[in-house]
Amino acid sequence: MATDPLSITLTALADPTRRQILARLGQGEATVMELAAPFALKLPTVSKHLKVLQRAGLVSQSRRAQWRPCRLEVAPLTDVAELIDRYRDLWDERHDRLDEPLHQLQTEDKSDE
Amino acid sequence: MATDPLSITLTALADPTRRQILARLGQGEATVMELAAPFALKLPTVSKHLKVLQRAGLVSQSRRAQWRPCRLEVAPLTDVAELIDRYRDLWDERHDRLDEPLHQLQTEDKSDE
Repeated sequence: MATDPLSITLTALADPTRRQILARLGQGEATVMELAAPFALKLPTVSKHLKVLQRAGLVSQSRRAQWRPCRLEVAPLTDVAELIDRYRDLWDERHDRLDEPLHQLQTEDKSDE
Repeated sequence: MATDPLSITLTALADPTRRQILARLGQGEATVMELAAPFALKLPTVSKHLKVLQRAGLVSQSRRAQWRPCRLEVAPLTDVAELIDRYRDLWDERHDRLDEPLHQLQTEDKSDE
């Protein structure tokens, strides 16, 4: 398994439960208990997923408060965004190309008027 | 390992060699030989990575031409973009918050004038 930061982030995201945990943390900090409840997950399962997310830098856990809330850290996601944005032009382009025959038809329609 | 389409795509992306192969294919179709050359990879290694990328729907291989060119398929990347875009507001927001003290300082400077 690759050990560069971007690969670690992508591996952490490659699990629906971990993505659900991130989505929940996107709404605000939560304890491990609060994270486990809506997904009917056992605490050790949540802890295991949180460890993967923490290793990727996607989640931090406060050591100050006694309830140790988990918090979403968005910084690693900006690297994923950068990777994806490199291809964004490409799919816009292919989409435009798919639209071309339709656009041509519409233009022809107008010239008939 | 998760088997939903988005997780399969993210797992396929979670390897620097596979991302390099995709970047090369982003510039145009290429044969397995052409993909192997710049990365000094052995053909079985490239084939192994291509299989992962094909399973994720990120690469297709033409059966028509004798040289069977590989082609980038961007559709699965739009799902990754959708996932990331959900957090984009969040990092813009945090960035704005980081800028706040600076902005405040600048405003105070102006009020001193």
